[in-house]
Amino acid sequence: MSNNLLAGKRGIVFGALNEMSIAWKVAERAVEEGAKITLTNTPLAVRMGTTNELGAKLNAEIIPADATSVDDLQVVFERSMEVLGGKVDFVLHSIGMSPNVRKKRTYDDLDYGMLNTTLDVSAVSFHKMIQVAKKLDAINTGGSIVALSYIAAQRTMVGYNDMADAKSLLESIARSFGYIYGREKNVRINTISQSPTMTTAGSGVKGIDNLFDFAERMSPLGNATADDCADYCIVMFSDLTKKVTMQNLYHDGGFSNMGMSYRAMEQYIKGLDEYRDENGNIIYG
Amino acid sequence: MSNNLLAGKRGIVFGALNEMSIAWKVAERAVEEGAKITLTNTPLAVRMGTTNELGAKLNAEIIPADATSVDDLQVVFERSMEVLGGKVDFVLHSIGMSPNVRKKRTYDDLDYGMLNTTLDVSAVSFHKMIQVAKKLDAINTGGSIVALSYIAAQRTMVGYNDMADAKSLLESIARSFGYIYGREKNVRINTISQSPTMTTAGSGVKGIDNLFDFAERMSPLGNATADDCADYCIVMFSDLTKKVTMQNLYHDGGFSNMGMSYRAMEQYIKGLDEYRDENGNIIYG
Amino acid sequence: MSNNLLAGKRGIVFGALNEMSIAWKVAERAVEEGAKITLTNTPLAVRMGTTNELGAKLNAEIIPADATSVDDLQVVFERSMEVLGGKVDFVLHSIGMSPNVRKKRTYDDLDYGMLNTTLDVSAVSFHKMIQVAKKLDAINTGGSIVALSYIAAQRTMVGYNDMADAKSLLESIARSFGYIYGREKNVRINTISQSPTMTTAGSGVKGIDNLFDFAERMSPLGNATADDCADYCIVMFSDLTKKVTMQNLYHDGGFSNMGMSYRAMEQYIKGLDEYRDENGNIIYG
Amino acid sequence: MSNNLLAGKRGIVFGALNEMSIAWKVAERAVEEGAKITLTNTPLAVRMGTTNELGAKLNAEIIPADATSVDDLQVVFERSMEVLGGKVDFVLHSIGMSPNVRKKRTYDDLDYGMLNTTLDVSAVSFHKMIQVAKKLDAINTGGSIVALSYIAAQRTMVGYNDMADAKSLLESIARSFGYIYGREKNVRINTISQSPTMTTAGSGVKGIDNLFDFAERMSPLGNATADDCADYCIVMFSDLTKKVTMQNLYHDGGFSNMGMSYRAMEQYIKGLDEYRDENGNIIYG
Repeated sequence: MSNNLLAGKRGIVFGALNEMSIAWKVAERAVEEGAKITLTNTPLAVRMGTTNELGAKLNAEIIPADATSVDDLQVVFERSMEVLGGKVDFVLHSIGMSPNVRKKRTYDDLDYGMLNTTLDVSAVSFHKMIQVAKKLDAINTGGSIVALSYIAAQRTMVGYNDMADAKSLLESIARSFGYIYGREKNVRINTISQSPTMTTAGSGVKGIDNLFDFAERMSPLGNATADDCADYCIVMFSDLTKKVTMQNLYHDGGFSNMGMSYRAMEQYIKGLDEYRDENGNIIYG
Repeated sequence: MSNNLLAGKRGIVFGALNEMSIAWKVAERAVEEGAKITLTNTPLAVRMGTTNELGAKLNAEIIPADATSVDDLQVVFERSMEVLGGKVDFVLHSIGMSPNVRKKRTYDDLDYGMLNTTLDVSAVSFHKMIQVAKKLDAINTGGSIVALSYIAAQRTMVGYNDMADAKSLLESIARSFGYIYGREKNVRINTISQSPTMTTAGSGVKGIDNLFDFAERMSPLGNATADDCADYCIVMFSDLTKKVTMQNLYHDGGFSNMGMSYRAMEQYIKGLDEYRDENGNIIYG
Repeated sequence: MSNNLLAGKRGIVFGALNEMSIAWKVAERAVEEGAKITLTNTPLAVRMGTTNELGAKLNAEIIPADATSVDDLQVVFERSMEVLGGKVDFVLHSIGMSPNVRKKRTYDDLDYGMLNTTLDVSAVSFHKMIQVAKKLDAINTGGSIVALSYIAAQRTMVGYNDMADAKSLLESIARSFGYIYGREKNVRINTISQSPTMTTAGSGVKGIDNLFDFAERMSPLGNATADDCADYCIVMFSDLTKKVTMQNLYHDGGFSNMGMSYRAMEQYIKGLDEYRDENGNIIYG
Repeated sequence: MSNNLLAGKRGIVFGALNEMSIAWKVAERAVEEGAKITLTNTPLAVRMGTTNELGAKLNAEIIPADATSVDDLQVVFERSMEVLGGKVDFVLHSIGMSPNVRKKRTYDDLDYGMLNTTLDVSAVSFHKMIQVAKKLDAINTGGSIVALSYIAAQRTMVGYNDMADAKSLLESIARSFGYIYGREKNVRINTISQSPTMTTAGSGVKGIDNLFDFAERMSPLGNATADDCADYCIVMFSDLTKKVTMQNLYHDGGFSNMGMSYRAMEQYIKGLDEYRDENGNIIYG
């Protein structure tokens, strides 16, 4: 169903790998809401994923690019303006990767070259993307930029490793550049802090299934899905949120403001049962 | 312009006094987006304001009620379901008042009877409203409740007095009840923390014009207006945000994440000029 | 062991019921660090608890008082200055009680008279105490006021009920009055957000033992004990923290910034085991 | 005056350049409180600053080291254990530098090689330092690590540029590593978010004097000085705070929880005067 929220708008979606990707859903929904878009991902991801299929379906040109390369980013914005017929109105940054996580380096045994890559790919790319756009004056007044984040930026989650630091850096860049781009061009920059999501990227995090279960039971509305997230991105791209900027917006069924829920505690207690005495008291130690 | 975001939805708007009111704008926009609504305010406010005019314009029944009275609130929900033809989908709480502020009692000379009234009217009324609704099962699954708040809940603003404490309490109630109502009925509860706004209520705060100017210059996008706020409320009532709950959402042009802006500092410095020596250094003391 | 941190200082400790109380430990440590103190609690608590024993041990006068009564609070400060020989330097507020919790009223079935009592006893009493002190000019320049809080003020904990709202209000009062008392008399006001603690009050919270276990496993340093908390209070009363004010200080072994720990997840997973298939994948639904 | 809070403890202080440095004050106070320490800074800083003088005064060995070099950090910890006679109990990280700021590159015109240096020197060095210490098992159980931060990590301050992002990253590392080092060795890791301070480093920030004035008038207790900060560091190194970890502790006279103060507004209004009409109303536009 469409509410025509992005009628006449032009956008760029970074990071649509396959149909599990949040970026994929955002691309579909953006077009459904009336936007014209381009898609971009790394040359490797374009080859390995099914991005081409999405491009065909949405009539969207795919521009392969390394988001850590200023030159490539320039191509993305210039080519997008060309094929879309003008400056863009919205941009989605859905990019994150940690070689330390992939190589199972623990947080107290990080490889610093890999950490550098984690930060560059997952966070600094966001700055590069915005700086390139601003220098090209590629975004319309009142435009909206969104990056996807995760609550590990605020609260340590076992196994999330150096991606937590990357997300903190990402959210800081949204604030810092949100100020500059806002005051000069009325362009909004926000991050959406999404529930754990069973995407290809998400599935790579160790123990994601348990974390997913915990978050599901902690959140009064359950985890937000990739489809839900796409809806929220549409809202943030629309003109209805044009005074929201520099924010990190939790989109998580309430998880971020929960300390402990009944459902999660019921599950937790099951594991405790063997440590209880005959009166139901927990036996410590 | 309508995006038909609330087509077929039913809502109740608390607190529309006159056309400067945020609640007034929300009522207008909700109807524009396809909703049927009822309006409610205190009997006194209904008489003094121009709520009746709004009701006529929007074809909305006005139900006078004291929001601190459980009985009155029951009437509001029962009557609303009756005239709207079913359970409601959204509710706006835009209510706040401090007798201590009105009587110019400073924060270190509060009257505790008045403080009780401040808390009851401005915050506990929100709990009462929700508890009544839940007991009557008056809100549809997936429904959305929003209350208007202000950043004084987090950061002390001179002159805001005991309203700051009331807003903290209000936001806490949104979280506490958001958990309960979310897990049981999928009903969302959020607060929107709005820029200082030149409403009749806002104008009552001492020094509001200076604060308004400061916030305007601090916020990269400038202050959010009542109209902007109405748009954001529509978004929060729509199905596009159905996994957002227990949040306090800053709607303030970026103010909440600013420490100091160029424009505000330029203004601030002007006042410092007379305290500078010939080299431009500030003379302290 | 004493570091002589409160040598020559005078203080008032509210809320020492018995030797499990945090306030009890604070009283002992304060005297150990060189302070002279008075103790106060409700007349009922003084009779039921063993406060008298503590008073005898510490050579501290006990001043029974209802902390919701401005008159009683006046007596506490006037009598304290008299017996201690001058203005006081520090005050501890360790007071909280919810009739709704006691009567097992759930959060969606609150009695509003009881809610009023919860807020008055657990939060507004803090404002009254400070306002009385300020009007009497009973606190020395550079003095320090601390109230004990809990993270439920920020994140909903099942079963904590309307005490969560009271703690939010309490923390807001610390900020609001911290500004006023700071600018005028250099008096600091902070809250310490303490781990769940097995005090008489804490034990009254439903499911506290499970919550205690969860917090213990989530926190890298484990839960902070009442003794640990007393040490932290001493630090906050000392001259070494004289520029810290309006803060909510987490004293919780790291819990507040944890999203999920290895130890808590291990425990959580145990309860999940029965829902796993032969490959270890969780079976949902 | 000494409270003997660090009697028998061993520490390492990074970043003491000259007597304006916070690290310098911390070093002096640590020794005063009974600790034995080593000092370290870059070879260049050691030559240019007066660190040697401080070393002589405190009988502390100076170990020149580049804090971005894992090898150098290894030397610092190994040599410190050697000269101090055992594992260390506390470490101060007071390191930060942005070539972009120095070269006056604005935030929308960052040089990415320079950004890399900013992040490496000001934030990643903290991870390296801790990882090296942990691998060498160089810190005693219950030890305490502190890094100095600034509120620009949360709220954008004009002119603070990419240092804001570096501080966000720094604070995230404190949380992430605080979890790991806490659960395994009971080592605490916190950041202290200090008022703007007129150190050599601080003086380099554009417009620091105006920002200093604004913060001074906003904070009810005024800005915290370098001496105040040293006291707070001592507290965080002592055994009295042994359950505080993963926190960012504001040490700022209350600034962080202020929205607007009377004194700052009075100053701000002066600059507005020329824009007022005869009735005192602000003339906009």
